Amino acid sequence: MSALDYSSTTFAAWRDAAKGPWQDYTQHAYVKGLGDGTLPKANFLHYLIQDYVFLVHFSRAWALAVVKSNTLDEMKTAAGTVDALVNHEMQLHVETCAKEGISEDQLFNAVEAPENMAYTRFVMDAGLSGDFLDLMAALAPCVFGYGVIGRTLSETAAPDTPYQEWIDTYSGDDYQGVCLSVGEMIDKAAQARLGDNPTNNPRWKSLCDTFTKATRLEVGFWEMAMRGHP
Amino acid sequence: MSALDYSSTTFAAWRDAAKGPWQDYTQHAYVKGLGDGTLPKANFLHYLIQDYVFLVHFSRAWALAVVKSNTLDEMKTAAGTVDALVNHEMQLHVETCAKEGISEDQLFNAVEAPENMAYTRFVMDAGLSGDFLDLMAALAPCVFGYGVIGRTLSETAAPDTPYQEWIDTYSGDDYQGVCLSVGEMIDKAAQARLGDNPTNNPRWKSLCDTFTKATRLEVGFWEMAMRGHP
Amino acid sequence: MSALDYSSTTFAAWRDAAKGPWQDYTQHAYVKGLGDGTLPKANFLHYLIQDYVFLVHFSRAWALAVVKSNTLDEMKTAAGTVDALVNHEMQLHVETCAKEGISEDQLFNAVEAPENMAYTRFVMDAGLSGDFLDLMAALAPCVFGYGVIGRTLSETAAPDTPYQEWIDTYSGDDYQGVCLSVGEMIDKAAQARLGDNPTNNPRWKSLCDTFTKATRLEVGFWEMAMRGHP
Amino acid sequence: MSALDYSSTTFAAWRDAAKGPWQDYTQHAYVKGLGDGTLPKANFLHYLIQDYVFLVHFSRAWALAVVKSNTLDEMKTAAGTVDALVNHEMQLHVETCAKEGISEDQLFNAVEAPENMAYTRFVMDAGLSGDFLDLMAALAPCVFGYGVIGRTLSETAAPDTPYQEWIDTYSGDDYQGVCLSVGEMIDKAAQARLGDNPTNNPRWKSLCDTFTKATRLEVGFWEMAMRGHP
Repeated sequence: MSALDYSSTTFAAWRDAAKGPWQDYTQHAYVKGLGDGTLPKANFLHYLIQDYVFLVHFSRAWALAVVKSNTLDEMKTAAGTVDALVNHEMQLHVETCAKEGISEDQLFNAVEAPENMAYTRFVMDAGLSGDFLDLMAALAPCVFGYGVIGRTLSETAAPDTPYQEWIDTYSGDDYQGVCLSVGEMIDKAAQARLGDNPTNNPRWKSLCDTFTKATRLEVGFWEMAMRGHP
Repeated sequence: MSALDYSSTTFAAWRDAAKGPWQDYTQHAYVKGLGDGTLPKANFLHYLIQDYVFLVHFSRAWALAVVKSNTLDEMKTAAGTVDALVNHEMQLHVETCAKEGISEDQLFNAVEAPENMAYTRFVMDAGLSGDFLDLMAALAPCVFGYGVIGRTLSETAAPDTPYQEWIDTYSGDDYQGVCLSVGEMIDKAAQARLGDNPTNNPRWKSLCDTFTKATRLEVGFWEMAMRGHP
Repeated sequence: MSALDYSSTTFAAWRDAAKGPWQDYTQHAYVKGLGDGTLPKANFLHYLIQDYVFLVHFSRAWALAVVKSNTLDEMKTAAGTVDALVNHEMQLHVETCAKEGISEDQLFNAVEAPENMAYTRFVMDAGLSGDFLDLMAALAPCVFGYGVIGRTLSETAAPDTPYQEWIDTYSGDDYQGVCLSVGEMIDKAAQARLGDNPTNNPRWKSLCDTFTKATRLEVGFWEMAMRGHP
Repeated sequence: MSALDYSSTTFAAWRDAAKGPWQDYTQHAYVKGLGDGTLPKANFLHYLIQDYVFLVHFSRAWALAVVKSNTLDEMKTAAGTVDALVNHEMQLHVETCAKEGISEDQLFNAVEAPENMAYTRFVMDAGLSGDFLDLMAALAPCVFGYGVIGRTLSETAAPDTPYQEWIDTYSGDDYQGVCLSVGEMIDKAAQARLGDNPTNNPRWKSLCDTFTKATRLEVGFWEMAMRGHP
């Protein structure tokens, strides 16, 4: 098992089932631009604003995971993630945008790009229509993808890229620790609902579909960020 | 397989796992009072008002099943049931109550007994927290229990019981047909989520728990009806 | 009040607040292509498949409206609409596609375009996050827009357009009647939550925003249909 | 405004509209037994187990409030409350029960009394069917009632009551601070949805009804605790 599997056989299997889209997402031109520093600052700022709105809905999705938890472990992991998102991860966005004269209320009320809406509302509805595990399959590409991208860029980025702070956030111990604990929790959640051989369960295909759709919507998000306007 | 299994191995297995509560529910003193005609009319009327409010929320629960359907078959069965409940089954209540001078708006706004709230809100939350099948396990005791009770009473009731119309409603072809189609749909829904041996799936125990809890809440509903006031 | 207001002051006010997007939507090149017959058949077929998937989720959204109804009138209108959608409106799509050798199961499982996901999931989440009226504001552009487009095309379409059946469906008495009854119900729903002067209520701006966002997502749907592939 | 209004005109108005039930709840024999120390330890332990399960669902309800937040302030207050409940308030229960040899997993899986289910599921469904403010009206009796009871008992309890730790928890600065911040947030939430004169808004009666129903369900909870078994 590689470090980028985050000790999660479920994540690794979902990722392998979404091979093409997963590459498109984690090796996107936007990601390369973060690493070599060629991404225009205006695009990064546009991304940051959209990503703030994304995190608002991503927090709502993790809160829905609290609503849908079956075990204490699921509930604690989900509740901790909501708190980490609302009170910590969003601060990177708030502080960087504050330097550009954009307030948190402006961020909260920014006009969402359609690609942003498509992804976050798809996740919310995966939770409403399915169970905790269906919701996890929709959330997973974001959680783990950013971990993988952050860690990869931390090894490959140009030393003078202006996006080092972003890279540090997602390659840092805090975020990598979130990936590990979510990965372990998802493995337990999968075992509790699908049994010891999750890939043999009739729900497996549908869970892979959800993960793949969400991965494609992440690609759409990068493309929106490259385009540079809502 | 007996006629009262409604061709559903899933229902039959859930019922067998809830043996004691299922007997308490389907052979309750209230049920006997319907059959031998000893149930006081005031209690029946009280029941009818509470059951109208119950059906409002039961319709909402079947509407939530439409929201949570994964297949066309699930969606059509659930949508048809919502329509049958809102536009047909509730009419027995409306008409009987109208004869007593109680309007449908009064019924809709009647004060709910706590036992009524406990059952219906438990069902709604089973749907919100779980998937389609979790919701079905919470709905099943009502759907099939009334079928079993109606059919049993149609064979055993005193010829002069004043509750013949109630018995006819639930033993009639329409209602028995609903039980059959819901039973078949639940079998398919269980297979699609749990595989060919649903009882071996790790979710099985939790589904039986949900069915048993809902059955106990049905017993509470009869007890509220016997008590005769909210 | 014009015939295309569907006797609904709420709809008329929402539409007027969304002026630009409403024109972009109801007078889109796709709509013109339906009317003058220049729309390529492949695009229509692609639209029909996507619209079938749209209607699946639109039915789920109306089912969520049953879940969120506060009055008997709201519940009956919403339940009737679910039934009309699942058992009737979707038949146009099923029958037309059947002639092209596409089965209903294929339709149900068609790959959704991102624009399709964005719109339907936005509607579902408007319902999950808000109340019945927030959900209605998200549903309204589709309900009334198709009524307006159908009726306008019925007066202006070329006599030999191959899309006469589509135009007949939405300009017909059945669909126009749905618009009227939904319009009246929304007026009552608005009054019950916002008071006699809904536009003075602090929620008004947010409801207009929801309607406008949903209208923009309808424009995106037409653009996806013009593009001709997911 | 009294200290027990928690600076919230909305809470004070809801409480005054629920006068009888509010007294029944905050001055219940169970509360007196906590204060004068006559409550049997077995009843307290039974209560603590049920209240742990209650807090699990209460955390889920506050998580649903995160899902349904419209503003950053609502989201932060709700997310903070979920964290406080899951990671702090429940610890009193866990530690006290641990001394009696009851593990947290046993608590999490304890058999719920019907009165417990009635209350928590009613709250969840108030959130699913309504908006953020409807959910707040259902949550408010618990939040503020425990604040009022804790503070009152801190002034009146017998010096040797064995329930001093419970009293300290709810009269302490942490819990009283939660009441204050929730009270202020609810006032803003009411103003944003109902306008400057919330009591004139057509939703006001329904919000009072929700608060009163939830207060009655709190009375049922104490009665279950007095009875001493599920």
